Amino acid sequence: MNDAFDYARYDRIRPILWTGDALELLDQRKLPFIVEHLTCGTSDEVAAAIHSLAVRGAPAIGIAAAWGTVLAAREVEAEDGAQAALKLEPALQRLNAARPTAVNLAWALARMRRALPAAGADWRELLAREAQAIADEDLAANRHMGELGAALIGEGSGVLTHCNTGSLATAGFGTALGVIRAGVAQGRILKVFADETRPWQQGARLTVWELQQDGIDATLIADAAASHLMKTGAVQWVIVGADRICANGDTANKIGTYQLAIAARHHGLKFMVVAPSSTVDMDTADGEAIEIEERDPGELYGIGGVRTVAEGIKAWNPVFDVTPGSLIDAIVTEKGVVERPDAERMRSLFG
Amino acid sequence: MNDAFDYARYDRIRPILWTGDALELLDQRKLPFIVEHLTCGTSDEVAAAIHSLAVRGAPAIGIAAAWGTVLAAREVEAEDGAQAALKLEPALQRLNAARPTAVNLAWALARMRRALPAAGADWRELLAREAQAIADEDLAANRHMGELGAALIGEGSGVLTHCNTGSLATAGFGTALGVIRAGVAQGRILKVFADETRPWQQGARLTVWELQQDGIDATLIADAAASHLMKTGAVQWVIVGADRICANGDTANKIGTYQLAIAARHHGLKFMVVAPSSTVDMDTADGEAIEIEERDPGELYGIGGVRTVAEGIKAWNPVFDVTPGSLIDAIVTEKGVVERPDAERMRSLFG
Repeated sequence: MNDAFDYARYDRIRPILWTGDALELLDQRKLPFIVEHLTCGTSDEVAAAIHSLAVRGAPAIGIAAAWGTVLAAREVEAEDGAQAALKLEPALQRLNAARPTAVNLAWALARMRRALPAAGADWRELLAREAQAIADEDLAANRHMGELGAALIGEGSGVLTHCNTGSLATAGFGTALGVIRAGVAQGRILKVFADETRPWQQGARLTVWELQQDGIDATLIADAAASHLMKTGAVQWVIVGADRICANGDTANKIGTYQLAIAARHHGLKFMVVAPSSTVDMDTADGEAIEIEERDPGELYGIGGVRTVAEGIKAWNPVFDVTPGSLIDAIVTEKGVVERPDAERMRSLFG
Repeated sequence: MNDAFDYARYDRIRPILWTGDALELLDQRKLPFIVEHLTCGTSDEVAAAIHSLAVRGAPAIGIAAAWGTVLAAREVEAEDGAQAALKLEPALQRLNAARPTAVNLAWALARMRRALPAAGADWRELLAREAQAIADEDLAANRHMGELGAALIGEGSGVLTHCNTGSLATAGFGTALGVIRAGVAQGRILKVFADETRPWQQGARLTVWELQQDGIDATLIADAAASHLMKTGAVQWVIVGADRICANGDTANKIGTYQLAIAARHHGLKFMVVAPSSTVDMDTADGEAIEIEERDPGELYGIGGVRTVAEGIKAWNPVFDVTPGSLIDAIVTEKGVVERPDAERMRSLFG
């Protein structure tokens, strides 16, 4: 086993580029066939990009919103940070409303807000430094989580992941996919399976493409094939990201995560959640309190613009679900690992 | 509650039409947007239609193969049934090889074979009568199963189904969807949810379309949303069909069925399998002995001819899984209901 990690080899994708003038987002609606950046010159363009899923993944949304705040700063006049805070608030609220479930979005905006009151005339530069720090810290956190998470995985393991939690969903390296990157590099993980993740196909369009870019062998499966895969003995861990982690370890993540956790427990397999501590929301006691975003039923009517469902059909399209902490074996953050999470163990690390 | 069932109102679709000269199959690859019949004039055309999924659903495959045998009879010369049996065998084996998992296919062909030895010069007419009997008995069995299954469901229930087990998958009325038709007609079932059923989208393309044709309200969900739906309390029963039921109740069915059974048990919900007794294979002791069909990984590379996955990606595409009898609350056949199936209870009805 090789514990040294070759970052350059296994981590080549960066979805969010700040040019100094504008925010360039690798447009994830167009991947994998069109690799194209969407240029946002205003905060409302960033909000629209978040809402339309051009940028997605809880950490990436937070970083994009931070840069959106920097763009908003160009749209107002203010003599100091305190004045700016008032004038920026409407733009920040529009950014915050772009997606309801991801706590990182609110977290990043709160951090940008906090930077303002003490700032003088250089408040714009201060916001830009804060946004850059959020991005840099995310990448560093992901690398650290990769090492912490990989250390839990036995040699020769197979793993299953859901949605996209990779470089594309973060500043780089990824959360759950960061653990997988580190585990592959260390020779602990031999087989990687990825759910296609309907309706938006993040696994099929993004995860397997991203792993392919980095030369990591991966196999795509239908969401409905996960339990059958588990039964074959091919995987020992299910590794997923998170959009919000509650004070008792209950975790909101992409629809289908809960089902994987139930099936993993049924088969005696391990279930790992990997997310930066900014995803942990100690003010939300448990999963009951989480608002589950429901998106346009039309997302279920087809794929890639091709309709496969008859006209006039009803659909229900919740895009997140909540996995109870009791079904999770390890929550991995850059601050450390909480095994078999409950309110007490969560408090000991995050309280 | 109204126990009388208005068949004409809730059962209008017939996927298999014998014209006297040829077999016309409602081409299920083209639904829901193109309602078109594929005409098969030879047994090999029927085998190709079965293999390519133009006709699908275990009972419908058996019926199509029976008519395929009638077509094969026109392709050989024979003076009596015994001679015909020998000459037909190659065509029957090609029909049998068209799909590996569904036991009904082998069952229908065996029944056609059995009709031959005693037949004289009228062996062709006898095969045609046998094929018609298989179709007629399937429809009658479905109506009876509908009544037996619906009787298990409490008033005001919600149900979830998977794949397509309806009129389209049978001679008419359907198996699991027959129970749902009967339950809706009797006022026992108020809400019907249908999984989209990747990769072939039988739920999205066929089930919700079929229910719409018959005026039954249904809501489409992503396969990965099933457990979240269960948690909301919206469904009390999961009702599915079967491709093969073993001597201990283990049931092979569309990929994803196993996952639903695990999740239903986790939530304390009931799980019902509905299939004609021709699906029961008492010669197969348990699910370990079932060969699971794997289809072209390309079925996961897109939907409706539109590619959504990058070139060079590997995929694993098992199209069935096995649900252990221990996760099933009721197996409903036209011969009766086996509750909490195990080898002994199965034997008491089918032994």
